[in-house]
This record gives sequence, C-alpha cells and structure tokens, in this order.
Amino acid sequence: MANQSADIEEGTTFTPKFDRDGLVTAVVTDAGSGELLMVAHMNAEALRRTVESGEAWYYSRSRQALWKKGESSGHVQRVKELRVDCDQDALWLKVEQAGPGACHTGRRSCFYRAVPLGKSGAVTLEFRDGDKTFDPKAVYRQS
Amino acid sequence: MANQSADIEEGTTFTPKFDRDGLVTAVVTDAGSGELLMVAHMNAEALRRTVESGEAWYYSRSRQALWKKGESSGHVQRVKELRVDCDQDALWLKVEQAGPGACHTGRRSCFYRAVPLGKSGAVTLEFRDGDKTFDPKAVYRQS
Repeated sequence: MANQSADIEEGTTFTPKFDRDGLVTAVVTDAGSGELLMVAHMNAEALRRTVESGEAWYYSRSRQALWKKGESSGHVQRVKELRVDCDQDALWLKVEQAGPGACHTGRRSCFYRAVPLGKSGAVTLEFRDGDKTFDPKAVYRQS
Repeated sequence: MANQSADIEEGTTFTPKFDRDGLVTAVVTDAGSGELLMVAHMNAEALRRTVESGEAWYYSRSRQALWKKGESSGHVQRVKELRVDCDQDALWLKVEQAGPGACHTGRRSCFYRAVPLGKSGAVTLEFRDGDKTFDPKAVYRQS
C-alpha cells in the first residue's frame, strides 16, 4: 500500500480514482481571473473527451448523461490547463469561459452566495456577485 | 420541484445537500493569491464547526473521522469567506493558510501535476509547482 500510495502521489502515471459511481470531482476556475466558476463531475469518457479535445465535458449526475459544457448555451469552456491532485480523485480545470457565464442560473459563477461565519443555528445566506449576466431562459431555449 | 429548486438556487436559506455518505464537497483556495489549495469533504458536524469557529474542519473519507485542518501539522486554515454553489452541494472556502502548505505531501497545493492535453491513450503527468515547501515526515511526527 505504501508504494502504491507513493506512485499515486509522486509518480507521473495518470490513474484517476473514480468513486463508486465512476466519477471524479472537477473544480473549474477562470484561467484569467482565477475565479472559481463551478464544481462538476467527470466519468472516464468525459475525462477522455476533455483531454483529447481541450474542451470541457462533464457527467451530469441529475440527468445521468455525458454533457459537453456549452452544447446548449454556447458557453463552451476551452481548457488551458488540467491538473490532478495528490491522491488523483480531483481535477482542476483552468478554462477560458466563452459567453457571459458558467452557471445555469444566469451568473458568471455558481458561487454567488456567502455563508456568514461566527454564528450558530440557522444561517441566512448573503448574495455576493449575484447579478445575472445572462437570461438563462433565453439562452437555454436556443438549443 | 420547480419551486423547491428556485428556493435552493435563489433563496437565502442555507440547506446544504449532503450526498448519501452525508458529505458535501469543499473547494479550498488561498484568500490572497486565489490559488486552489485542496479539495476536501465536510459532513454536517465539520460544516457546523467551520461556520461557528471560522477555522476549517473536514471529514476524512479514508479515516472516517472528523478532522480539523492543521491539528497535526499546525497548518490551520482561517476561513475568510465561505460560499455555497447554486444547488448547494459544493462549498468554497477562501482561507488564510497557516504554515508553508496545505498538502500532506509537503507542498503548498495538492494540485502539483498537470495532465497534458490534446493526446489520446496513456498520459504522462507533468510536475508543475511541485517543489516541496515542507518535510511532511517532520511535520506530521510532531503530533
């Protein structure tokens, strides 16, 4: 086990560790600003297509389907760099985001609400950078 | 369902969606540089302690245990901002990372290897920012 762990962490063989649903976590940031855009999941086929094409493919857990980012909206993600973490169960995509945003709610990033800290009990979220940059109804109807 | 989805995505009630193992994904970036440091998981108790204390707690899937970041290494993470994504199944922690790094392998970030793009078949990882910033054997022996 120790040697296997060393290979995974210190080696150059790409052996992504898919979970029991066959998925790895994909963290997606804007290659220019560094902003966190979204968190998604990839199965082996989505990962293969992403590596080969340089455009981001994911696997939708809710729709149980392979999914090319931007196939409906046109908001394609061109991958500038793809990294893997120490234990190879998470990926980091630095992307050029086409169009006004990555989030299906019509915002640039999916992370538009903050959780106030230092409190206990029920929590009220606070909107941050919550302005919509596009109308999702208009964008997703085009497909 | 539509109304429920709208509440989750557009409302101010914090209703984190834990998976069937009781976990949400936590993406951790450096509050200063924006660098992606690590991806971890939180159960409800880790999240509660993080929100209340302003220091990052996680749940280790391999050790099946609640875990305060830095409890062994001293590399505590002070949370400057906590955000939740549209469907509330992922969290973003912007942290001040104490000490020389976040990764248990002795590096600042867990994402120190790149996957070359535009290729098919077997992939050889390329080290990026892979220099160790501390000796993990020394650091973790102190605990």
